[in-house]
Amino acid sequence: MMRRGFQVAAGLGHQRTLSKIPHLLPRLNMASASGSPTDSLVSRFCLEKTDLKDYALPNGSWGPEMLSLYQEFLEKTKSGSWVKMPSFKSNREHIQGLKLPFELGVTSDKSDGRIFTRCIQAEGQGYEYVIFFQPSKKKSVCLFQPGPYLEGPPGFAHGGSLAAIIDETFSKTAYLAGEGLFTLSLNIRFKNLIPVGSLAVLDVQVEKIEDQKLYMSCVAQSRDQQTVYAKSSGVFLQRQLEEASLQ
Amino acid sequence: MMRRGFQVAAGLGHQRTLSKIPHLLPRLNMASASGSPTDSLVSRFCLEKTDLKDYALPNGSWGPEMLSLYQEFLEKTKSGSWVKMPSFKSNREHIQGLKLPFELGVTSDKSDGRIFTRCIQAEGQGYEYVIFFQPSKKKSVCLFQPGPYLEGPPGFAHGGSLAAIIDETFSKTAYLAGEGLFTLSLNIRFKNLIPVGSLAVLDVQVEKIEDQKLYMSCVAQSRDQQTVYAKSSGVFLQRQLEEASLQ
Repeated sequence: MMRRGFQVAAGLGHQRTLSKIPHLLPRLNMASASGSPTDSLVSRFCLEKTDLKDYALPNGSWGPEMLSLYQEFLEKTKSGSWVKMPSFKSNREHIQGLKLPFELGVTSDKSDGRIFTRCIQAEGQGYEYVIFFQPSKKKSVCLFQPGPYLEGPPGFAHGGSLAAIIDETFSKTAYLAGEGLFTLSLNIRFKNLIPVGSLAVLDVQVEKIEDQKLYMSCVAQSRDQQTVYAKSSGVFLQRQLEEASLQ
Repeated sequence: MMRRGFQVAAGLGHQRTLSKIPHLLPRLNMASASGSPTDSLVSRFCLEKTDLKDYALPNGSWGPEMLSLYQEFLEKTKSGSWVKMPSFKSNREHIQGLKLPFELGVTSDKSDGRIFTRCIQAEGQGYEYVIFFQPSKKKSVCLFQPGPYLEGPPGFAHGGSLAAIIDETFSKTAYLAGEGLFTLSLNIRFKNLIPVGSLAVLDVQVEKIEDQKLYMSCVAQSRDQQTVYAKSSGVFLQRQLEEASLQ
């Protein structure tokens, strides 16, 4: 049975409809003294110091192309125009200190969850990726190196593994650029297969924000831009994460 | 740089275009004495006896809903109207005895690959799924139970993990129904989040086969059909896997 709008099923046969929530909290009201709402979101999500393990750091499995492009973007972060997003084991860690919209609280008692794109811990076997974000342009670049556990056709990344990293990059970018929290739709046109172990560069852009929706685009291609792997678009719904109340 | 048609990059900066291959091998010419081309494909891919480990069998992590629906479909296989697809560690195992189209042979020397949807081996932590196929109707049902390593929002499956299992179910169905081998496009509209550990039932249908393309649809929902998780469509390109020549 279809219902109007995007919904969240908090349990089988028990659901709460986002469209029924008193319409959404004032948007982008978290501007800090130092800058824009995006700056404020970035400063809260891209922690410079934390004890949490950041998986978006170079390791021995990264190929020379991935390493050199990582260094290039790291240089750009020094001026503050780009930021490197940290990547923790779980979104629970990313949203520390915030509470989720109430409709998401039901099944959160488990602590052994891992964000899907960090599900494989052995270096180089699964997802290797790092995302850089440019707040002023509302765009991101994701460097993605699929390992052999991400296979579809022998020797090449599964289309679903590319779909997932596109969704993840969209998701983090949509949140920082405008509190986009839920994927409403995802469209991907596949052009070439990505050989396992090689680098795909995902250029992600927020195209527009309208009616509490963020419209995203992505081109995934080789570093030299001679091989397009996929083109994608996605739509995300804005939902504000609330600050936890002090108790 | 964009090029026409779907391409396969066999290495960075080195690619061979599917559209340049002398156009494709005669389709569906593998009818066995006993039945249709689909029957022949099914008998070669859904081996009844094999030494390979089949991951699409019940284990202690399967919930009661998944187990009972599995038993229901297993009953239906007894009449031969439905078949249970085996699920091996890698597509290399699925295509044993066949050789890949030549443009896919380059990076296949690694033997440690795993199909993405079987990337997590610990029972119940990642993907638990089984696909049943109904050859006469060109449709499939996938029972999918996401584990805690497939998280997006805390407690719920990542949109990308659903995208990947839809792509995988499309892919196997498209091959058995009409030798669909490459995903050309994938469109997903997300309606509800799937709680980790619960069951999603994916109903997949080949809508039409035209111009060497298979047009697929999918509805993912709760078993009682009261909660739609996502609706999806996909297009797959036909490419015949060749029989290995004897040497």
